[in-house]
Amino acid sequence: MSRRGERPSTETLATLPVAVDAMGGDKAPGDIVAGCRRVVDETGIAVVLVGPPDQVGDTAGLPLVECTEVIAMDEDPAGGVRRKKDSSLVRAAELVRDGQACAMVSAGNTGATMASALLRMGRLPGVVRPCIATPLPRLGRTPAVLVDAGANAECTPAMLVQFAQMGAAYVTARFGTAHPTVGLLSIGEEPTKGTPLVKETHHLLVDEAGFEFVGNLEGRDLLPSPADVIVTDGFTGNVALKALEGSLRFLFDAMLGVFGTDEATKAAADVLLPHLLPLAAQFEPENTGGAMLLGTDGVCVISHGSSGATAMVNAVKVAHECATRGLADAVALAVRPVQEA
Amino acid sequence: MSRRGERPSTETLATLPVAVDAMGGDKAPGDIVAGCRRVVDETGIAVVLVGPPDQVGDTAGLPLVECTEVIAMDEDPAGGVRRKKDSSLVRAAELVRDGQACAMVSAGNTGATMASALLRMGRLPGVVRPCIATPLPRLGRTPAVLVDAGANAECTPAMLVQFAQMGAAYVTARFGTAHPTVGLLSIGEEPTKGTPLVKETHHLLVDEAGFEFVGNLEGRDLLPSPADVIVTDGFTGNVALKALEGSLRFLFDAMLGVFGTDEATKAAADVLLPHLLPLAAQFEPENTGGAMLLGTDGVCVISHGSSGATAMVNAVKVAHECATRGLADAVALAVRPVQEA
Repeated sequence: MSRRGERPSTETLATLPVAVDAMGGDKAPGDIVAGCRRVVDETGIAVVLVGPPDQVGDTAGLPLVECTEVIAMDEDPAGGVRRKKDSSLVRAAELVRDGQACAMVSAGNTGATMASALLRMGRLPGVVRPCIATPLPRLGRTPAVLVDAGANAECTPAMLVQFAQMGAAYVTARFGTAHPTVGLLSIGEEPTKGTPLVKETHHLLVDEAGFEFVGNLEGRDLLPSPADVIVTDGFTGNVALKALEGSLRFLFDAMLGVFGTDEATKAAADVLLPHLLPLAAQFEPENTGGAMLLGTDGVCVISHGSSGATAMVNAVKVAHECATRGLADAVALAVRPVQEA
Repeated sequence: MSRRGERPSTETLATLPVAVDAMGGDKAPGDIVAGCRRVVDETGIAVVLVGPPDQVGDTAGLPLVECTEVIAMDEDPAGGVRRKKDSSLVRAAELVRDGQACAMVSAGNTGATMASALLRMGRLPGVVRPCIATPLPRLGRTPAVLVDAGANAECTPAMLVQFAQMGAAYVTARFGTAHPTVGLLSIGEEPTKGTPLVKETHHLLVDEAGFEFVGNLEGRDLLPSPADVIVTDGFTGNVALKALEGSLRFLFDAMLGVFGTDEATKAAADVLLPHLLPLAAQFEPENTGGAMLLGTDGVCVISHGSSGATAMVNAVKVAHECATRGLADAVALAVRPVQEA
């Protein structure tokens, strides 16, 4: 069942808590609860935890919406959401739908998080498919976002055009980007390069208003991205994003290995590490606030499965900020029907 | 016109020169010729340059097969090969076809290099489409290879299975890998994850002999790869590969920026750089010997467009080594027809 009646005003949303799935992620519930406690203390944002009391345990004084079930990290998403109607994920999405929370956050099963949000909050009018927007760091600038980072393995040109519309609305709502630029991920700059999906999407994006289409981008343009929004299908997006994460981790690990080889390198590393750590921090998923589901009738932040307390602090901040800035309204306004050839 | 008659024996191939497109790449002809001179002097491998004499200029004493045309880096590949029958690329491929060279090397227009090799050497029997195999470094081990790294934007399951067969034959011929392992690039380990293309390919690979199929891999598994061969379509492969290249370059550049900030970091960097450079060298396209086109009736190495002299040295070595180890024969033996569902 999707949303009943009107979405609350941004003034009302600002007074509502963020609903956090206390059982989501590899470090739940301990680090999830600790992060929520911290963000409440540091910012005054209200948080309500959702989970089975016996599994959540100590809520650190935070309110808990009780439920009886948990969808496991490796559980089939659609089946889990269908069977476990009293799970922490489904109940968190219902809190947003029913105007009792301004947004939901989960570091749990990504597919089940999407399915819960989609089935309980519903799609915004005209949205063919929701997508996931993931930030890509740009040193000294606001991050770019990659859409779709994995929600839809199979896409049509019309879906990709809507991802562009929604991604542009998102960077405006979240980072204040006044005139967003959009690039299309392909294997060459020329409009004739790529799959039929990419070629047709390129053709359609040229005619779009609402953002500036800068043409095709390549894999090497992801870091740092020249466009504010990079559009791709969820299969390519997921592979590319994990390739970036993996290569950066690989290189940091290899460097740390070098740093400890002998006394001289250890001493040198002590000098350099304070300079390198801020760089590393920009690539740390804990610090980015997580990925955003776009196209649902309510805000849903999808955090990394490895999220610790710091990731929760940032995810709750981003969720609250986007909800109170009217992200869902902005996305609804940006989405238009697309006529495929 | 494709190959006439029998492929030369590996004994005969060992006596033949490597044909190098003197006009291919951003640094042609200067660095290309210099690299060829170096590899001849260092290894005794014979090289024949191919290009228009007035454009190549000084051949550093190397033999030149003269032609009148050059296909530009940004020229339409198919059109270029069709129109410019006396171009350096087409002529280099003809030298291999006619048994006058053991292999060809070009750092020029990738699409035109593939088209020249495909149209002039022809496909090996049973090969649906040739593919590009690109090495992925693994510290302290032989590299893994990614197939297809960009030859075919659109693929069928049967094509991907053949890429696996050819990739496995390649790592055996080039690195001596006795029992190659193959992974399929997807967005989750489960066989049910991914596009219909990936799901059907997974199903077919389970039944393949000739290599060990280890199941699906994700983008984060590209560096370092747990499998000797990673199979994907040419669109995803190209995006992933360029994402890796881009992120590593970005991080190295950012680190070098940190290293020069003041006297203390400069001194520390002087200690660490000798340890970091061998690491960086493993990710340097100059050192990998370039990508290999698999499935054509003759060896063709596709070097990076930015190739300098060192890249040419390595590319010529790899081309000669693979030709004399009978790579084309090995690929022909490995390729079997695939029955799609």
